[in-house]
Amino acid sequence: MNRRKIISILGKIILVEVLLMIPALLISLAYQDGDAGAFLFTMVPAGIIGFLMNRTRQSERRMSSRDGYFIVAAAWIVISLIGAVPLYLGGGFPSYWNALFEIVSGFTTTGASILAKPEALGHGILFWRSFTHWIGGMGVLVFVLMVMPMENDNSMHLVRAEVPGPTAGKLVPRMRTTSMILYGIYTVMTLILIGLLCLLGMPMFDSFCIAFGTAGTGGFGVTAAGIGGYNSLAIEIVVGIFMLLFGINFNVYHLLLLRKFKDAFSTEEVKVFLGIVAASTIAIAINIVNFAGGIGNALRQAFFQVSSIITTTGFATVDYEQWPEFAKHTIVLLMVIGACAGSTGGGMKISRVIILVKSFIQEIRQIINPKEIVTVRLNGKPVDKKTLESTRIYAAVYLILVCVFTLIVSLDGYDLTTNLTAVLSCFNNIGPGLHLVGPAANFSIFSDWVQVVLSFVMLTGRLEIFPMFLLLAKSAHDR
Amino acid sequence: MNRRKIISILGKIILVEVLLMIPALLISLAYQDGDAGAFLFTMVPAGIIGFLMNRTRQSERRMSSRDGYFIVAAAWIVISLIGAVPLYLGGGFPSYWNALFEIVSGFTTTGASILAKPEALGHGILFWRSFTHWIGGMGVLVFVLMVMPMENDNSMHLVRAEVPGPTAGKLVPRMRTTSMILYGIYTVMTLILIGLLCLLGMPMFDSFCIAFGTAGTGGFGVTAAGIGGYNSLAIEIVVGIFMLLFGINFNVYHLLLLRKFKDAFSTEEVKVFLGIVAASTIAIAINIVNFAGGIGNALRQAFFQVSSIITTTGFATVDYEQWPEFAKHTIVLLMVIGACAGSTGGGMKISRVIILVKSFIQEIRQIINPKEIVTVRLNGKPVDKKTLESTRIYAAVYLILVCVFTLIVSLDGYDLTTNLTAVLSCFNNIGPGLHLVGPAANFSIFSDWVQVVLSFVMLTGRLEIFPMFLLLAKSAHDR
Repeated sequence: MNRRKIISILGKIILVEVLLMIPALLISLAYQDGDAGAFLFTMVPAGIIGFLMNRTRQSERRMSSRDGYFIVAAAWIVISLIGAVPLYLGGGFPSYWNALFEIVSGFTTTGASILAKPEALGHGILFWRSFTHWIGGMGVLVFVLMVMPMENDNSMHLVRAEVPGPTAGKLVPRMRTTSMILYGIYTVMTLILIGLLCLLGMPMFDSFCIAFGTAGTGGFGVTAAGIGGYNSLAIEIVVGIFMLLFGINFNVYHLLLLRKFKDAFSTEEVKVFLGIVAASTIAIAINIVNFAGGIGNALRQAFFQVSSIITTTGFATVDYEQWPEFAKHTIVLLMVIGACAGSTGGGMKISRVIILVKSFIQEIRQIINPKEIVTVRLNGKPVDKKTLESTRIYAAVYLILVCVFTLIVSLDGYDLTTNLTAVLSCFNNIGPGLHLVGPAANFSIFSDWVQVVLSFVMLTGRLEIFPMFLLLAKSAHDR
Repeated sequence: MNRRKIISILGKIILVEVLLMIPALLISLAYQDGDAGAFLFTMVPAGIIGFLMNRTRQSERRMSSRDGYFIVAAAWIVISLIGAVPLYLGGGFPSYWNALFEIVSGFTTTGASILAKPEALGHGILFWRSFTHWIGGMGVLVFVLMVMPMENDNSMHLVRAEVPGPTAGKLVPRMRTTSMILYGIYTVMTLILIGLLCLLGMPMFDSFCIAFGTAGTGGFGVTAAGIGGYNSLAIEIVVGIFMLLFGINFNVYHLLLLRKFKDAFSTEEVKVFLGIVAASTIAIAINIVNFAGGIGNALRQAFFQVSSIITTTGFATVDYEQWPEFAKHTIVLLMVIGACAGSTGGGMKISRVIILVKSFIQEIRQIINPKEIVTVRLNGKPVDKKTLESTRIYAAVYLILVCVFTLIVSLDGYDLTTNLTAVLSCFNNIGPGLHLVGPAANFSIFSDWVQVVLSFVMLTGRLEIFPMFLLLAKSAHDR
C-alpha cells in the first residue's frame, strides 16, 4: 500500500472540496442567511489539513489498481465527513449523523432527505446540498484529476474505480483531455438547463439547484413541494427530458461531437433505455388513467415519474404512493434497472441488464444446441469473458447485499415494503421509495444508526460495491 | 427432437401416475367419502391414453440433454394437469385452475393452498394432495426411472434436469441402483416419521399426510390449524427435526450407509445449513421473546419456524405474520436461501449461496492481490469453472425472474409485501408468505389467471428455471 501517495491525494481532494464550498459561502453572505460562519468553520481547518496532507513527500512507487479502489472509497468518505459539517453547524439537522446522511445522499446523487421542509434551510446550505449532486454526478475523482493532473497511469486506476458501468474500461476518460471534454459537455448541458428554467419563470436560485439535481440525477429540491410546486407543464417537460438526457451514456454525446452520428445513434444501450422508458410510461399511464383523471394527465404524470426513477433522479410531481399497485411495482422495477452506464445515473445500469438478460437467453440456446458456440453481444460486438463474469458476480452480490441490508434496516421495526424500497432507493441512488419513505415522506423515520447504515448503502451503490468492501476488508486486515 | 421417444416416456409417466392414485382411490372407498368416482373418472381415461402413448414405436436415436430438459418440463406439466382432475371433480375447488394450482403446489412441494379449510375435503382427495408432496420431493422422473428402467445414458439426462442444486452432476443417482438406494433412504425415513407421529398420538391418517408433507418438504396439512392444532410439544419437535433431516443433502445419508463417516460429517453445505438454522433461531427468539412470552416459548416457536422455512416446508405452529419486523424479515431471507442441494427442499440452495458469497470474497481478494490466482472452494475442493459460471447466471436469472413475476402478479392489485413474498414463496417452493398470504391466510385471494402464473412460478422454481423456459422457447420455435 502506497500510504504517502494516498495521503497526498486525499489532501488534494480536501483542498478541492474547500474550493468547491466557496460559491455556497458567497451565497450565504449575499443572502445573509447566517450560515457563512458554518462554512468558514469548516473550510479553514479543512483547508489547513488538506494543505498539510498534500505536502507529504511522495514515494516514487506507482499506484496499483488496489490503491485506486482504496483511494476512491476513502475520498468519498472523507468528502462526505467534511461536507456534512456546514449542514450540522448550520443548525438545520438534529444530529451530525443526519447531516452526514443528507450529504452522502447529495454526493452519491441519491437525493433521499431527512428533511420535511428543505425551505427551512438557509440559501447557502441549500446551494451546497444541491451542488454536491452536481459534483458527485460526474465523479469527484474525475474532477480532481482534471484540476490537478497526475501521471496517466495513476489516474486510470482512480477513474476505473469511480466511473460506473461494466463498459467503463473502454469508454471512460483515459486522459485528462477526454475527461475535460466530458466535463465540458456536462457543464454546457447544465447551463442550458439553468437558462431554460429561468426562461420558464423559475426563480434563478431554484433554477441552479434544480439543474444541479437534474444533471447529477440527484433529486434534492429546494421546497417540500418539489417540481410540482412550480405548477408549470413546461418546467415539468423540460426537467423530464433533461433527466433522460443526463441518464444517457455520455459517450454518445462525445461521439456526436466527433460527428460519428451513426455510432452514436446505433448505441444499443440507449435504444433499450428509451424503449424501457416508452414501454413503462404507456403501461403506467394505462394503469393510472382513473387516478390521474384522463389519459393526457396520466401520460404526463407517468412520463415524468418514469424518467425520474429510471435515471435515479427521484424528483416527484405526484405522490406515486397513491397510484394503483401495478404502477408502483413498475416503479420499483425501474429502480433496480437504473440508467445507462457512463451517465450520471445509478442503478444496475442498462448495459448490465442487457448482458444479464442475454446471458439467460444464451444459456437456454446452449441447452437447445449444446454444440453451438454462443456469445453475448452488446452493440453488435461480443462481450469479453471478464466483463461477462464480473457482470454476473455483480448481479449475485447485488442480490445478496439487498437482502442483508434490508434485514439490518428491519431492526428499526418498519414493514418490508418500506425497508426494501428504502434500501433499493439508497443502493440505486434514487431518493424516494414506497410506503413510509414514499415521495411525500422522508427518511427521518429511521434511527441515527440506520441512517449511517443507509449512508454506507448509498456509497456502496454509487461506487459499485467493490471499493467500499475493499476498504472494509483492508481496515480489518490492517488491524 | 426425439418425438416418438418423448411420447413414449410421457406415456410411461402417465401410467405411473395412475398407479400412484390407487392408494387414494382405496382410501376414498374405505372412508366412503364419495370421491372414488372422481378418481376413477381420471384414472381410466388417463390409463388408456398413457398405455397408447407408451406403445409408440421408439426410434433408435439416443436422447440429448435437450430432450432431457424438455421431457422433465413436459412430464411435470402433464402429471399436474392430470393430477388436478380428481380435485376438481371432487367438488372442493371452485374452478379447474384452482385445483391445478393446488396440485402443482403439491408436486412441487410448495404447499401453498387456496383452501381455508382443507378438512372440508374427502379423505381420498386429502391423501392424494399430500401424497403428491412425497412423490414430488424426490422427483417424479427419478421414480419413473426406478420402476421402468431405460438405458443409462438416457436416464442421466433426465435426472440431471430434475434433481436440484449445482452439484447435481456428481452426486445424484447415475444408475438405477443409486437411485433405488436414495429412494430407500427416503422411504425408511418417512416410515420412521409416520411411526413416531402415531406413537405421539396423532391419528394414523394425519400421520401419513403430515409425514408426506414433511418428507417432501411440502407443507400441506389436513386441517386449517396445521401442526399447532395437535397441541403437542413432542410432535412439534419431531416434525421440526425431521424437516431439517429432509432438508439435508441425501448424499450425506448415502455416505453414512457406506460408513464414510468422516466425509459425511465434514460436508461443508450441511455445516453451513445447520449454522444458519442455529443463528436464525437465536436471532428470531431474541426478537420475539415478548411476543412469545418468555425465552423458552420463543426458542420453541423460532426453531420450528426456521426449520420449516429454510427447508421450504412451510408448516406453521404460529402466525408469524404477527411477529416483530426483524423476525419476519429473517423469515423472508431464509425463504431465498433454502435447503441443501440434493435434498427434497427448494430455494436458492445452501451450496449456491456458499459459492456466491465466496465468489464475492474472492473478487475482493483478487482486487487486493491481482496476481493471486483465486479459487472458490466447496468442501475443500475447487469448484470448476462451469459450475461457478452457471451458479452466477442462476443468481442473476433468479433476480430478474423474481422482479418480473412480482410485477405480473401485481396486476391483481395487492401490495408489494404480499406479491413479493407470494412469488418468493412459490418460486422457492415454500408455501406461506407474508401479509395477505401469511401463514394464517391462503392463496385464494389471487384471480384464476394469477394462480396459473404462480403455478408456472412453482414449476420454474422446482425444476430450477431452465427446463420450463426451454419448453417455452421450444414451443415458440416450433410454431
